Amino acid sequence: MTVRVRVPASSSNLGAGFDCIGVAVDRWLVASVTPKAGSGISIRRRGRLTAVSVAVDEDLLARGFRAAGGRGGAIDATSDIPVGCGLGSSAAAIVAGALLADAALELNLTPQQIVEIATTIEGHPDNVAPAVYGGAVLSVRTPSGLVSTPLTVASDLELVLAVPPFPSDTKAARAALPKTLPHSDAVLAASRAAALVQGLSTGDGALLGAALDDVLHVPFRRARIPGYDAVVRAAQDAGAFGATLSGAGSAILAIAPRERATAVGAAMIAAWRSAGVDAELIRSEHPVPGATVNRIPSLSHPVSSELS
Amino acid sequence: MTVRVRVPASSSNLGAGFDCIGVAVDRWLVASVTPKAGSGISIRRRGRLTAVSVAVDEDLLARGFRAAGGRGGAIDATSDIPVGCGLGSSAAAIVAGALLADAALELNLTPQQIVEIATTIEGHPDNVAPAVYGGAVLSVRTPSGLVSTPLTVASDLELVLAVPPFPSDTKAARAALPKTLPHSDAVLAASRAAALVQGLSTGDGALLGAALDDVLHVPFRRARIPGYDAVVRAAQDAGAFGATLSGAGSAILAIAPRERATAVGAAMIAAWRSAGVDAELIRSEHPVPGATVNRIPSLSHPVSSELS
Repeated sequence: MTVRVRVPASSSNLGAGFDCIGVAVDRWLVASVTPKAGSGISIRRRGRLTAVSVAVDEDLLARGFRAAGGRGGAIDATSDIPVGCGLGSSAAAIVAGALLADAALELNLTPQQIVEIATTIEGHPDNVAPAVYGGAVLSVRTPSGLVSTPLTVASDLELVLAVPPFPSDTKAARAALPKTLPHSDAVLAASRAAALVQGLSTGDGALLGAALDDVLHVPFRRARIPGYDAVVRAAQDAGAFGATLSGAGSAILAIAPRERATAVGAAMIAAWRSAGVDAELIRSEHPVPGATVNRIPSLSHPVSSELS
Repeated sequence: MTVRVRVPASSSNLGAGFDCIGVAVDRWLVASVTPKAGSGISIRRRGRLTAVSVAVDEDLLARGFRAAGGRGGAIDATSDIPVGCGLGSSAAAIVAGALLADAALELNLTPQQIVEIATTIEGHPDNVAPAVYGGAVLSVRTPSGLVSTPLTVASDLELVLAVPPFPSDTKAARAALPKTLPHSDAVLAASRAAALVQGLSTGDGALLGAALDDVLHVPFRRARIPGYDAVVRAAQDAGAFGATLSGAGSAILAIAPRERATAVGAAMIAAWRSAGVDAELIRSEHPVPGATVNRIPSLSHPVSSELS
């Protein structure tokens, strides 16, 4: 039997929702496994995954697969998610690996158990939760464990992503964060995180503008992304409520009224082109569904007919 | 002509919503003014307002009245809002004063203008906005000004307040806050502010529990309120999702499932009694309406028939 999973990309932080809010994006990692007890893990990488060069043991598909209990299998994976650009390619790979093990071994793990397993590898749940559940998700650690809850997103909002051809070094982006913050900035950050939840739900542009103007991480990271300020300004000038780093970058996410999304996307790509960067446009209709699993009772690998 | 206003009490912060979220509480300040051009301001204080001892010029009713353009008038005010206990007695007085001037001078200020005028005196909008609008309100500063937006509160939640007979020194409570915070605490604070908005909306107890466990202000203030830890624990043990300082205290606010609210209130009062404090119970059915204004074309002061 072959198991196949399909896991969406995601954009995390959305400005003020640092490390806790993420939204599924309409790009996909598709992977299948044919379990082979005792034979170790092999991975065939196609599509954007050919950019991954780590050893199989360190591959996030393999790490997710092992973390959920998987031991041996031939994994075949392809993806159209840009790798290392703040679109949740890591989370998608970990979630895919964990779901492959869950389905192949018939563990019947709950979605929340998949989120928790993947979060132990990823470090934070903000990409993992939307990759599993789809839509926009808030994940908060509580005394009774990690709680992931779907956020309402107003139907007239659209996410527009402009993805440059260079990755962002996530570890360096995290190391750029300061050890302490002025108390007044922490207060501002909290009010803007509240504004993000409320603004997504109501579509209020002023709230979303404040929410996308983060103080916890973007001020310390934006200088690492050439063209950042120009692309954000171009998005705003074209009618977006705001724009910010997708995850730790390098992609930039704008949230716009649906009728402005085309103009916003064009303006972002043009601004990046002016900075000498040939960026890729991704528009994502909300809500993007979460991960799906199929069991295929044959030896064929239908995955090869999807995505290039 | 006499103008009469009625303004509700409020509880701000609700844990993680520091300086930005507040909720109207079912206690009221009722004030009337008979304009007297050129004669200065006089104030007759009754009810809980007899606890106010500042000079008339410094009285928050007079300051709100003047800030909105009022010059002279005889103000008659009474209130059943405990003074200085974190229930928005100051915000209610400022809002009442501003509304009296607005109505007496027929300025036709918008509610948001009243919020902005009162916030310049109060310093932050978290009590002022629910006093004006009623219900639960998020107020966020944005480039286009202060935005106040109503928050949804799940119908099966109830606010329970236990108010000790001693006030809290708001200035000292603010001075107790640190100048800086660890970045990790600021991240936690932001996720819990998001959890507060989402938890109020959905009634999710785990989210509310996290949201009421604030890291921005309560850790630095709670030692100033004798009995705080015991009362919070008693509320939780009796079935509240959590409890926290109301504003900067001295009152403690619990959020509970409706069917546990009676037990939670009793447990909080009992815990405070064990600490030698005879506290007052306030239960508040959400949503409490906002301020109302009436014009009374006579010289009678019907306010005297309301509240003791």
